[in-house]
Amino acid sequence: MFNFDYRNPTKIVFGQNRLNELDQLIPADAKVLITYGGGSVKKFGTLDAVKAALGQRTVLEFGGIEPNPRYQTLMQAAALAKAEQIDFLLAVGGGSVMDGTKFIALASHYRGDCAELLFKGTEQVDASAVLPLGTVATLPATGSEMNGNAVITHPDGKLALSSPLAYPQFSILDPSLTFTLPKIQVANGVVDAFVHVCEQYMTYPVDARIQDRMAEGILRTLIEIGPITINEPNNYAARANLVWSATNALNGLIGVGVPQDWATHCIGHELTARFGIDHAQTLAIVMPALWQARRQQKAAKLLQYAERVWDICDGSDEQRIDAAIAKTRAFFESLGISTRLSHYADDENSIDDIIAALDAHGMTQLTETQDLGLDDSRAILQSAW
Amino acid sequence: MFNFDYRNPTKIVFGQNRLNELDQLIPADAKVLITYGGGSVKKFGTLDAVKAALGQRTVLEFGGIEPNPRYQTLMQAAALAKAEQIDFLLAVGGGSVMDGTKFIALASHYRGDCAELLFKGTEQVDASAVLPLGTVATLPATGSEMNGNAVITHPDGKLALSSPLAYPQFSILDPSLTFTLPKIQVANGVVDAFVHVCEQYMTYPVDARIQDRMAEGILRTLIEIGPITINEPNNYAARANLVWSATNALNGLIGVGVPQDWATHCIGHELTARFGIDHAQTLAIVMPALWQARRQQKAAKLLQYAERVWDICDGSDEQRIDAAIAKTRAFFESLGISTRLSHYADDENSIDDIIAALDAHGMTQLTETQDLGLDDSRAILQSAW
Repeated sequence: MFNFDYRNPTKIVFGQNRLNELDQLIPADAKVLITYGGGSVKKFGTLDAVKAALGQRTVLEFGGIEPNPRYQTLMQAAALAKAEQIDFLLAVGGGSVMDGTKFIALASHYRGDCAELLFKGTEQVDASAVLPLGTVATLPATGSEMNGNAVITHPDGKLALSSPLAYPQFSILDPSLTFTLPKIQVANGVVDAFVHVCEQYMTYPVDARIQDRMAEGILRTLIEIGPITINEPNNYAARANLVWSATNALNGLIGVGVPQDWATHCIGHELTARFGIDHAQTLAIVMPALWQARRQQKAAKLLQYAERVWDICDGSDEQRIDAAIAKTRAFFESLGISTRLSHYADDENSIDDIIAALDAHGMTQLTETQDLGLDDSRAILQSAW
Repeated sequence: MFNFDYRNPTKIVFGQNRLNELDQLIPADAKVLITYGGGSVKKFGTLDAVKAALGQRTVLEFGGIEPNPRYQTLMQAAALAKAEQIDFLLAVGGGSVMDGTKFIALASHYRGDCAELLFKGTEQVDASAVLPLGTVATLPATGSEMNGNAVITHPDGKLALSSPLAYPQFSILDPSLTFTLPKIQVANGVVDAFVHVCEQYMTYPVDARIQDRMAEGILRTLIEIGPITINEPNNYAARANLVWSATNALNGLIGVGVPQDWATHCIGHELTARFGIDHAQTLAIVMPALWQARRQQKAAKLLQYAERVWDICDGSDEQRIDAAIAKTRAFFESLGISTRLSHYADDENSIDDIIAALDAHGMTQLTETQDLGLDDSRAILQSAW
């Protein structure tokens, strides 16, 4: 096990009928900016319930944060928060709204060009210049509700931000708020959480047994409840397990002291940028193909995964690895998510665009061993076609 | 899954050669009181290394915090901290030192009779009157390094304290600091962590799949590494897994949204008070007997435990439950810890004293369903004889 640091200060408020507790969670004299996305939180009454819970506080709204939240949009919100002297940001929505609100929190009073937050990192950020934020999470997937990470779409690409100052002070996770989600978003959430776990697990063994067991436990849970939660939207127990799986998939705990990969995400981000494919679907395309290409480097963990997650115990090493990859692909497909790039794109030659973008973004040495080059990424995408 | 709140702000600093980071973790102008126990941290150089890391800070010491730390001892330390205007408490040791230091943190500037902290709870404590604390944990067992709990021995009994104000700001967990522990303390640690998990797991099912999988993962890990870490004191990988298991066993995460039992601890505390039996050994005595007595109420989880933790899949339900309890008992015995009360006590009639103490402390309705009465506790202790 590698040396590590871990601290996660977010307070989780989990369960049904918790929205009224916003009144205790946010200072009574705070001027609040509620941030949200495309309007489903309006349509289904969540926004009204949130505003009711905030009582007499002065509340402003900023809607229209898009999936893969755009830098320009968020800069408008940051300007609003600064001009209106907002004291507290409350993100109501899914991963894009939460990610975007983290950027707003850091950017509103940032002394300098806010693009630096994406291109230079966040170490120079003054804690006293960061707005506090909380979330009401309506879509279990990204884990953004309990980490300090965000992915922002800048004109120059999808860029990641990470800061101990960007953790939500609290996140209200009410699984019943997910009942109204379209099936495809739930399926995307299952896949997103699944791949988050895999990026921190499917590398090489370092005898980190707790982390491995937790990772395997989340994967097994997602396999068990994935189909149920998609087919039974009002099944509270299944949704509760999905929500808590997604949070634990990326709250940092399973990733401490172990190597991490994230190549699937790096390549996937370019697929979203080029083709507009949903984030989770890009992961479902890339990961099985990447595992196939990296089956030697990842052999020990693939065999462990085969046995512990899929109960695959018979056959040679190669047969068990084949079976594990096939089971993973079949699981994604069973949720209604195609794992083939040709399902989403027309022209195989456009893979060249992806490789060019990876090159432009410096993604030339990917995976846990930093030895997946552009030719390897090209071969992976071709095999995923 | 039940509704729950979860927040754990402790920063974990895990791994080898981290002590020098104390200089960054504690304010440069802090006057520090180092607390420790019986002197092994002196003998093996940890205290010197800690003081060297603290550099030019003014440092005072308070040693002699005993196992099952005593109220009177801790009140002396609290008085010292107040008189010397200490700014920061640094616990260097195992669970008793960490628990005791939490009490000192709350008691030093408490406005009132400090016994209230044990008898009335901690809700009335003013956050501004609590000293910040950090730990250098030298004994993996209690999980105290990452929670807000403490057990203090008062003249009226072993009493528990819990407060969000009692979390360490940081805990340095260097597994190599455990190399010098006596074998029995390591064995105690394995059992203590194992039973902490079981108290939060062996109840009735509420479809909390992540919590169950995490709990089972810690149990399997302890079973795997328990004998190794006892027999190979310098095996860093095994100790690292033991340390991280013990922390995760009681940092609250596996206990969210699920029923909890803690009857084994309640009865065990009285065995320590009456006979001076090591805490973990009391747990090893009580738990198998308690499971046997509660096999109907706990049947569903006992069967799940049998399958997932011990791979027991054959036989009738009753046979699998029998096998799971027998395996658990045999595991404790294999670590050198007797599970029979008669091993530690001479007179079976003294069980009456335990029952009287449980009665005096209001422990008349134990377990997750609060229906384990004094006669049941007596029967459990008799069967454990």
